Amino acid sequence: MSARKLQIGCAGLGRMGKRHALNFLERTPRADLVAASSPDPAELEWAKTHLQPFGVRLYQDYEEMLQHEGLEAVVVASATAVHAEQAIKAIEAGKHVLCEKPLSTSVDVSQSVVDAAAKKPDLKVMCGFSRRFDVSYRDAYNKMQSGTIGTPAVLRSQTCDKLDPSGFFVAYAQFSGGIFVDCSIHDIDLTLWFFGPSSKIKSVSAVGITAVEPDLRKHNDRDNAVGVVEFHDGRIAYFYASRMMAAGQEDTTEIIGTRGKLAVNTQPALNHLHIYDDSGVRREIPQHYYDRFEYAFVTEANEFTAAVLDYKPLPLDLTAAVQAVRIGAALQESLITGKKILFDENGNRTEVARL
Amino acid sequence: MSARKLQIGCAGLGRMGKRHALNFLERTPRADLVAASSPDPAELEWAKTHLQPFGVRLYQDYEEMLQHEGLEAVVVASATAVHAEQAIKAIEAGKHVLCEKPLSTSVDVSQSVVDAAAKKPDLKVMCGFSRRFDVSYRDAYNKMQSGTIGTPAVLRSQTCDKLDPSGFFVAYAQFSGGIFVDCSIHDIDLTLWFFGPSSKIKSVSAVGITAVEPDLRKHNDRDNAVGVVEFHDGRIAYFYASRMMAAGQEDTTEIIGTRGKLAVNTQPALNHLHIYDDSGVRREIPQHYYDRFEYAFVTEANEFTAAVLDYKPLPLDLTAAVQAVRIGAALQESLITGKKILFDENGNRTEVARL
Amino acid sequence: MSARKLQIGCAGLGRMGKRHALNFLERTPRADLVAASSPDPAELEWAKTHLQPFGVRLYQDYEEMLQHEGLEAVVVASATAVHAEQAIKAIEAGKHVLCEKPLSTSVDVSQSVVDAAAKKPDLKVMCGFSRRFDVSYRDAYNKMQSGTIGTPAVLRSQTCDKLDPSGFFVAYAQFSGGIFVDCSIHDIDLTLWFFGPSSKIKSVSAVGITAVEPDLRKHNDRDNAVGVVEFHDGRIAYFYASRMMAAGQEDTTEIIGTRGKLAVNTQPALNHLHIYDDSGVRREIPQHYYDRFEYAFVTEANEFTAAVLDYKPLPLDLTAAVQAVRIGAALQESLITGKKILFDENGNRTEVARL
Amino acid sequence: MSARKLQIGCAGLGRMGKRHALNFLERTPRADLVAASSPDPAELEWAKTHLQPFGVRLYQDYEEMLQHEGLEAVVVASATAVHAEQAIKAIEAGKHVLCEKPLSTSVDVSQSVVDAAAKKPDLKVMCGFSRRFDVSYRDAYNKMQSGTIGTPAVLRSQTCDKLDPSGFFVAYAQFSGGIFVDCSIHDIDLTLWFFGPSSKIKSVSAVGITAVEPDLRKHNDRDNAVGVVEFHDGRIAYFYASRMMAAGQEDTTEIIGTRGKLAVNTQPALNHLHIYDDSGVRREIPQHYYDRFEYAFVTEANEFTAAVLDYKPLPLDLTAAVQAVRIGAALQESLITGKKILFDENGNRTEVARL
Repeated sequence: MSARKLQIGCAGLGRMGKRHALNFLERTPRADLVAASSPDPAELEWAKTHLQPFGVRLYQDYEEMLQHEGLEAVVVASATAVHAEQAIKAIEAGKHVLCEKPLSTSVDVSQSVVDAAAKKPDLKVMCGFSRRFDVSYRDAYNKMQSGTIGTPAVLRSQTCDKLDPSGFFVAYAQFSGGIFVDCSIHDIDLTLWFFGPSSKIKSVSAVGITAVEPDLRKHNDRDNAVGVVEFHDGRIAYFYASRMMAAGQEDTTEIIGTRGKLAVNTQPALNHLHIYDDSGVRREIPQHYYDRFEYAFVTEANEFTAAVLDYKPLPLDLTAAVQAVRIGAALQESLITGKKILFDENGNRTEVARL
Repeated sequence: MSARKLQIGCAGLGRMGKRHALNFLERTPRADLVAASSPDPAELEWAKTHLQPFGVRLYQDYEEMLQHEGLEAVVVASATAVHAEQAIKAIEAGKHVLCEKPLSTSVDVSQSVVDAAAKKPDLKVMCGFSRRFDVSYRDAYNKMQSGTIGTPAVLRSQTCDKLDPSGFFVAYAQFSGGIFVDCSIHDIDLTLWFFGPSSKIKSVSAVGITAVEPDLRKHNDRDNAVGVVEFHDGRIAYFYASRMMAAGQEDTTEIIGTRGKLAVNTQPALNHLHIYDDSGVRREIPQHYYDRFEYAFVTEANEFTAAVLDYKPLPLDLTAAVQAVRIGAALQESLITGKKILFDENGNRTEVARL
Repeated sequence: MSARKLQIGCAGLGRMGKRHALNFLERTPRADLVAASSPDPAELEWAKTHLQPFGVRLYQDYEEMLQHEGLEAVVVASATAVHAEQAIKAIEAGKHVLCEKPLSTSVDVSQSVVDAAAKKPDLKVMCGFSRRFDVSYRDAYNKMQSGTIGTPAVLRSQTCDKLDPSGFFVAYAQFSGGIFVDCSIHDIDLTLWFFGPSSKIKSVSAVGITAVEPDLRKHNDRDNAVGVVEFHDGRIAYFYASRMMAAGQEDTTEIIGTRGKLAVNTQPALNHLHIYDDSGVRREIPQHYYDRFEYAFVTEANEFTAAVLDYKPLPLDLTAAVQAVRIGAALQESLITGKKILFDENGNRTEVARL
Repeated sequence: MSARKLQIGCAGLGRMGKRHALNFLERTPRADLVAASSPDPAELEWAKTHLQPFGVRLYQDYEEMLQHEGLEAVVVASATAVHAEQAIKAIEAGKHVLCEKPLSTSVDVSQSVVDAAAKKPDLKVMCGFSRRFDVSYRDAYNKMQSGTIGTPAVLRSQTCDKLDPSGFFVAYAQFSGGIFVDCSIHDIDLTLWFFGPSSKIKSVSAVGITAVEPDLRKHNDRDNAVGVVEFHDGRIAYFYASRMMAAGQEDTTEIIGTRGKLAVNTQPALNHLHIYDDSGVRREIPQHYYDRFEYAFVTEANEFTAAVLDYKPLPLDLTAAVQAVRIGAALQESLITGKKILFDENGNRTEVARL
C-alpha cells in the first residue's frame, strides 16, 4: 500500500452527489476529495459548509473542474440525463471515472460511454452498481461460486421503495427511464453477475399497474411492475419493483440452485433491535435505499480508489452496465406494450409477440 | 351443537386418501368414518389394519360404497383422474362431497362437477383447497379484510416442493396436469380468495425450465416455472412453482396493499427450535406439503362436517375451483407455447400473443 | 393397535379441566371420555352442553365418579390444592392417573402420591408436564441425545406470562405456591429432563421484585423472579419467571453445550404471518400458555392413553415431579429469605447461607 | 463544524490498539493520528507498514510520545494492567483520554483515574464502553427513554465468546480480572446506562463452572458464569458470560419494562444472507466481538473527537466505569466464594452471606 492518495472530484451535489462527496472526503482513506462541481447554487451553498473548509475546491462548471490541477478521477453523481456526457468528457480529459448507475436510460448512449472508455484502456471506468459491494450479496456470490447451491437456475429479485405520498415519484418518472430502468436495473445487474456473462437473454416480458400513483401513466410508468427474463441456457430471472412499500425499503434477492438457495434480505431489519409490545414483536427496516446500502457505497469508493492506485482490475465490468440498461429498457417497453420481446443468442431482437 | 355425527366414506386410500380417512376417523369429532373404498389391494390391506378395527367398512368398489347404509357424505381422495367422476356419482347418489383439489385437470370436466352440484342445491359440495384452512392464511385474510394493508394490489405466491431425485415427479407429471395445475393451483386459489370474485382475469403468461428433470419435457412439464396473471381491475399476481427446493417445502405468499404487506411463511420453520453450531444458526423446515399443512386438513374435515350437520354455508365456493383450473391450465399452456393468453372481462379468451 | 378404548373420567372442569375433558373427548381417538366431575354448578352447567350430549356422565362428587362402571383412568385437572388427594384416591381405587402439574405445592404431599403409586405398580401414574410433549422441545431433546451440542452444561429457561392488569395473579398467588412453583416448575422439569437423573442439585438461590403487582407480597410472591440452580456435576440452570410480558406468553429455553446450543422459542411467533406496515415488520405471539402448548396437551392425552392400553412405559417418571416441586419450593424460599440454600449429593439440605 | 483536526496518539498496538489506531487514522475524519507507541518490536514493525507511511510518528516509549509536539489526546489501548497508569500520565500531561475498558481490574486503581481526571476538569476523559455506541443499543435506549416499554424493571444481558480450544482463554485469565470483569463488564455498564444513576446496587451473587477449560480454576476463573444483581429501587439485572459458544460471538440484551421489552441481538446474524440447503435454513453469526461491534468503535472514535473539538459533554460518564468494575469484581468474588455480597444504599458492603 502506498501513501499516495487519489485526487478525485465529484460532479453533482444532489442527494447522491452529497453522499459520494462525503464518502470520498471522510471515509475513503486513500482518496482526497479535491474538487466538486454543481450548477445548482443551493448545492454549492451546502458545499461551502460541508466541503470547502476541508480543502475541496468548488466549481459551478463541470468542465472547469476537469481542469483542476492534479485531478486524477471523477465520481459522476449528477442527474442521470448527464451521466454519460460527463463521464465521456472526463474520460477524454484522461480522468478515471466512477459513474452512478445507470450510464444512461438509453442503450445507445450507454454504449457510447463504453466506446469512449475503450479508447483509453489505461483509465479505470466503472458504473457504480452499489449492491455488488454489499457484504451480504458478496457473501452470497462467494458461496454460490464455492458450490453451496449447485448450479444457479432461478433468480428472484426485487427493488421496492417506500411509499412516498408526496408525488415525488411522478415528477421523478419524467427522467428516470421508468421503474425497470431505475429500480430493477439493480436486480438485472445482480442477475448478470450471478448468472455470469455466458447467460444470454432470450426473452423479456412485463406487466404493471398504478395502484397509488395513476399520474405515472403520463410518463409511461407504473408504481408496481413484474418482469420476467428467460435466458438461452435455461435459466429464469424474475423481478418485482414497487414504489408502494409501507414499511420501508425492501430489496430482496433469492438465487435458487439445483442444490440450495441463497436468500438476501428476506428478513429485512434496520438493526439488531426487536421491540415487544402489545402489538407483538416488531422490528424496523431501512426507510430508503441508502439506509440499506450505506456501507456498500463506502466500499465502492474504496475499491474504485484502490483499483486506480494499485493498477488492479475493477471489481465490475463496464459492458455489463450497458447490458443491464438494454434489459431494463426492454422490460419497460414490454410493460407499456404488453408484448413479449425476444432475443437471439447474439443479443439481437427477433420477433415480438403481437397482440 | 348436536351430538349427531356425520356418516362419511372415503374414496381412495393412497397417500392423501389415508390422511383424509384417518382425519375423519380420529380428528373429526362430529364425523364417523363408516366406509372406505379403493380398487388397490395394497391400500385395502393397509385399511384392514388401520380402519377396519374401528368399524370402518371396506369396499373395493366405489359405487358399492355409495350404497353403504346411512352414508351421508364422501371425501373424494382418489387419483385426480377420477375426482370429477366420483364426485358426480356421489352427488347423484345424494351425498355431500368433499373433493380433493383439483376437481380435474380439465376446465370442462371441472365445470361438470359444478353443474351436477347445482342440480342438488341441498348438498354441500366443496373442493378441498387446504391452504384456506391454515391459521396463518386465515389470519392474513382477516387482517386484510379489516384494512391492515389498505387495498391489496399485488400478490406473490409460490408452491415449491422439495427436490426428489428419485424420478417421482417425472412419473407424476403424466397425470398431474402440469406444474401450474398441480402446484400453483393453490396460489391461484389464494389469489381468487384474497382478490375476491370481482377481480376478473385479463392475461396470463408463463415461462419455465427443466433444471434437474429434463424428462419432464416428455409430459409438457417443467421443474421450475414462473407465471404472471393480470386482472382487469388493475391487480397483478405472480407465481413461482418448483420441484427443486433443497431445504424442504417452501410455500410462501405475500399480499401487498396500498398501506402494508402481509407475508405468509417468508421465514419457514418446522417448529420453534434453532440449532447453534459451528456452521451458524439453523432451523429445519417442513419437508413435504402435508408437514406444513397437516392441521389445515384437520380443520377442513371439521368445517366441512359442521357445514353439513349445521346446514351452514361452506367456507369456500365450488365455482372458484373451476376458475382456478381455468387459470392454471392457461398458465400451463403459456408455459409450453411461450404465448401470452388474453381474456375479456367476461372470462372469454380473446387474442393470443403470437410469436 | 387394538380398537379397545380407554374409559377415562375428568376431575375438575375449570380452565384446564375443560381443555383436558375436550381433548379426551375429541382429540384422543383411543380414549372415551365417559365421566366428568366438578363440585362447581357453573362448571357442570357447561358440561351439560359440551360433554353430556356425547355420552359423558356428569358427577358433582369426585368419589362417586370413581365408582363409574368400567372407569379405568382419571385425568386430575382440578385445583392444585386437591391434586394429590384426588390422585391418591384414584390410585387406591385402581385407576390410572394423569395428574396436572404440580402434584402439590408441598414436597411431602407430592411424595405421598409417589408412595401411593408405588403400591400399585400396575397402574400408570403420570404428572402432566405438558412441555415434554411439545414437538420443539422433543426435537431439541433428541438432537441433544444424538450429540449435536456435545455435553450440555448450562440451561436457561423462562416461563413468562402476559401482563394481566385485572389483579388475577394476586388472587391466584394465594394458592399457586408462588411464581417458582407455578411457572418455573416447567423450567425445572425441563432441566431435570435435559440434564438427566444423574445431575444432583447443589444449591439454589433467587431474587425477585414486584414491578407491577405490589400486593403479591401479601402472599410471599413476586411478579418477576430470577433463580439459579447449581448441580454437583458442574452444571448450571438459571430461570426467569414473570407475570409482566406485554406481548404475550414468552416461554423460552436454551440448552448450551460444549459444542453447540439448542434454543427453543427465542423467536416466538403465533403463526407464519408477518405484517409489514409503517411501524415496521411485526408478528404476533401466543397470548397464553395454552395457545403455545395446545398440541402438546393433545399429545400428552394420546401418549398417556397409549401407555395404558399398550402396557408401555410412561414417557416421564413420577419421581421427577417431586424433585421439581422440591427445587421450586426451595427457589421460592430463597426468593423470600434472600438466602442461598445448599444440598448435599444425597439431596439433603445442608447449611443455609445466612445474612 | 470546524476544519481543525484533533491530534491524537495511540498507546498500545496489540489486537485492540491496531484497531483504534486504524480507526483514528482512516475512519475519524476530524482526527489526525499523529503518534503511536508500543514497547513491543513486533507491534512497531506492523506500525512501520500500516501507520508510518501516513505520517504517524512511532514511539517505543509511551512517556516520550506524550511529549509529541501538538499532541492533544491519547487513546489508551494497551494491556489492561497499564490502562490506569497510562491514562493518569496522559491526564497529568494535559491530554484528553479515551481509555479502553476496563480502567483497571481493581476498583481502587480505577478510582484513581477518576480522581486524576477530576483535577483537570477541562480534559475529556472517557472509558470506551463500545456497546454504548452501537446503533441497536442506542435505538433501544432511545425507545426506552421515549416510554416504549414503560418502566424498565429487569435486564438480562450476556457477553459470550466463541469457543477457542487453543487455550488462549486460560493464559488470558491470568490478567483479565476474571470473566465478570472482562466480559460481563459490558453488561454491567449497559445496566448502569439503562437503569440510570439512581439505581443503587443492593446485592450481587454468582455461580460458575468450567465446562471446557478446567485450567481456568488456577486463575480463579470459570468458562461459564451466571450473575445476579439486585438494586435498591426494586430492579434486577442478571448476566451470563461464557467462553464456549460454538456458533460465534453472542452478545444479547433484553430490557423488560412494565409495558414492553426491548431485545438486542436475540436473533444474531452476520449479515442479511440466509442459506437454504438440505440441513435447513442457516445464517452465520459474527465470530468475534469486533466483528459485531466494528462500527460502534468507529462511532466511539468520532464522538470522542467531536466532544473534544466542540467542547461538548462526553457521551458517557467516567464514574460509571468505576462502578462497573466494582460490580464486576464483586460478582467475580461471589463466583469464587459462593457467597452473596450485600451493599447498603451508599454503596458500602454490609454483611456477606456466610456458608
